[in-house]
Amino acid sequence: MIYFDNSATTMPDQSVLDTFIKASTRFFGNPSSLHFPGMEAERFLERARNQIAVLCQVSADEIIFTSGGTESNNLAVKGAARFYQNRGRHIVTTAIEHPSVFEACRDLEEEGFRVTYVQPGQNGVVKTADIERVMTDDTILVTVMHVNNETGAIQPVEEIGRMLKSYPQTRFHVDAVQGFGKVPLNIKKANIDLLSVSGHKLHGLKGTGFLVKRSRAELVPLLSGGGQEKGIRSGTEHTAAAAALAKTVRLTLKEEVSSIQKMTNWLRQTLELRPEFVIHTPDGQAAPHILNVSVNGVKGEVLVHALEKKGFIVSTTSACSSKQTKPSRTLMAMGVHQDLASSAIRISLSSRNTMEEAEQFIETLDTIVPQLAKKRNERK
Amino acid sequence: MIYFDNSATTMPDQSVLDTFIKASTRFFGNPSSLHFPGMEAERFLERARNQIAVLCQVSADEIIFTSGGTESNNLAVKGAARFYQNRGRHIVTTAIEHPSVFEACRDLEEEGFRVTYVQPGQNGVVKTADIERVMTDDTILVTVMHVNNETGAIQPVEEIGRMLKSYPQTRFHVDAVQGFGKVPLNIKKANIDLLSVSGHKLHGLKGTGFLVKRSRAELVPLLSGGGQEKGIRSGTEHTAAAAALAKTVRLTLKEEVSSIQKMTNWLRQTLELRPEFVIHTPDGQAAPHILNVSVNGVKGEVLVHALEKKGFIVSTTSACSSKQTKPSRTLMAMGVHQDLASSAIRISLSSRNTMEEAEQFIETLDTIVPQLAKKRNERK
Repeated sequence: MIYFDNSATTMPDQSVLDTFIKASTRFFGNPSSLHFPGMEAERFLERARNQIAVLCQVSADEIIFTSGGTESNNLAVKGAARFYQNRGRHIVTTAIEHPSVFEACRDLEEEGFRVTYVQPGQNGVVKTADIERVMTDDTILVTVMHVNNETGAIQPVEEIGRMLKSYPQTRFHVDAVQGFGKVPLNIKKANIDLLSVSGHKLHGLKGTGFLVKRSRAELVPLLSGGGQEKGIRSGTEHTAAAAALAKTVRLTLKEEVSSIQKMTNWLRQTLELRPEFVIHTPDGQAAPHILNVSVNGVKGEVLVHALEKKGFIVSTTSACSSKQTKPSRTLMAMGVHQDLASSAIRISLSSRNTMEEAEQFIETLDTIVPQLAKKRNERK
Repeated sequence: MIYFDNSATTMPDQSVLDTFIKASTRFFGNPSSLHFPGMEAERFLERARNQIAVLCQVSADEIIFTSGGTESNNLAVKGAARFYQNRGRHIVTTAIEHPSVFEACRDLEEEGFRVTYVQPGQNGVVKTADIERVMTDDTILVTVMHVNNETGAIQPVEEIGRMLKSYPQTRFHVDAVQGFGKVPLNIKKANIDLLSVSGHKLHGLKGTGFLVKRSRAELVPLLSGGGQEKGIRSGTEHTAAAAALAKTVRLTLKEEVSSIQKMTNWLRQTLELRPEFVIHTPDGQAAPHILNVSVNGVKGEVLVHALEKKGFIVSTTSACSSKQTKPSRTLMAMGVHQDLASSAIRISLSSRNTMEEAEQFIETLDTIVPQLAKKRNERK
């Protein structure tokens, strides 16, 4: 099996699993307990928090551990909206956010918030000027993803952050689940208040994630109780998950992204030569690991299954949307025709993939695409 | 180290860890993906869900995986309140709930709900008649724990459930985090709509838990996004955590609770002979694994640390409350004097503890309590 669906999830690294196992047994105490096993677990938890903070260039008390990207996004978006609702009830986001931001915004509309969904350009990139145009006096939150999960398009979050310096009453959340470790981002320079990261997209474990919460951002918690994570996220602290996540972040930031970029570049150049392929990932403004392409007239699902039979794993869209039958919300927002959007497949690589796998992939495509096109023509 | 703080957390069982590791690598696919690794992960996830459902005697679609007890409690309490708020805005709970229910209720008061906190009797047990007395036409939710986490007192949830059959507009949530596997409870017979369970109290892993959601109970989700867990709990499904939890539940329900009961009985009988000890756990109406006792005039914290120096780990109160300096909310609600409540320690056993450990514990208490009492008298 050659796995090219690393934006959906990744195989956990053995060393991350080893850290989890070691910490689960050795530091099993409840970090909130006052006795030795509790304090030892707390010390190990705080060590993990510190490591992540240093790597993210923020302070340790700005790292909130969560159960993953969806929780981080929901906590940031709903938490900030609810906290600042007396200051204003307007939120700005984009039409191409991950469902965990998009649906959180929908929920907030039910609660009486107004949400503006800014459209991207044809390249899948949102313009800072389009964000600024819809800002109002009561805009309390702007939430924009760093890297789109379907096309890999990099959003201008640094530029948006600079623009937002003129709006001190507005908090800025960035969903960095797809961008983290792939595209450099300086949280402070980008004026980001809240930033979401998930472990399992980075060869870490599912159920692990964190939210960077800069000190000026306040949140209403989703989970109340024992007051863990400075009252922002109650629930018994999961020392082993935190340690595994610190290991994940460390490995991620050491990774050679250039090797992924090289494979994606080669795939792009090769597919561009074939007229039946349409590439949706913008050239020069995309993360190194995602390439979204359509084969004219071949349903994405059909192509995914044909590739799977040959041992290649890709996806039609994000896993979180894959059981819906509608074409991709992101591609539709980019103005891609519905038929072409229904033909899209997402190829997402990791540093564990090799150039040889990419070459085999193209060979396989070259075999099966003509067959699928022939079948299609016969049906016509 | 002899660990008697199993109500705070437990050492994970090696076989549970083995299941987690195996599933993390072998079934690492995203269960929402349509390809083979995704479908295989989904199949393994659903197998775990089925196993838990069978053991709980409910149907598989009534099991919602969460990140633990705090999330299960918050999801049930806030989720039901928000869903049924147009039917009514009154909630009934008790004064002795775990912080994750108690604080969730406090949050709901901020949102405009009225909450009645029913007081327990001196034995720490709430009376069904006291619950019924405060029921109103707009009571949408009753939430009562099965076993109190500090005293071990069993609450009459089956009787409350029977009473609630006359209130079909009211949903019934039970926090079973301390009771599960220790005190038998038939979810259907007890007319329970929502029931919370946590893995790490049962020699399982932190970050694992589930909510039983009977089909007639509706909830507003805390986490929105990809619509996983039938739309009730979005976020990439954590197959390995689910499999580890199924293993945990299987092991738990096979456990010989009688051996724990025997140790607790012996500890109780032995301590009852010593006049300086006051036992707060009600005799004959408590879970087998918890014994809450005060030593007159010796601060709980002092006793905990003295015991720790001798290698015995107990706690003053629940871990979730241990960093507060206030005396136990549960003991105060039972009418225990503040001084005596500040002297309480909680001994909580597991089937991994032995009678020999219990005997050593008493020997140690018999050595250190007179020393601490002497110190106290010298200070007077």
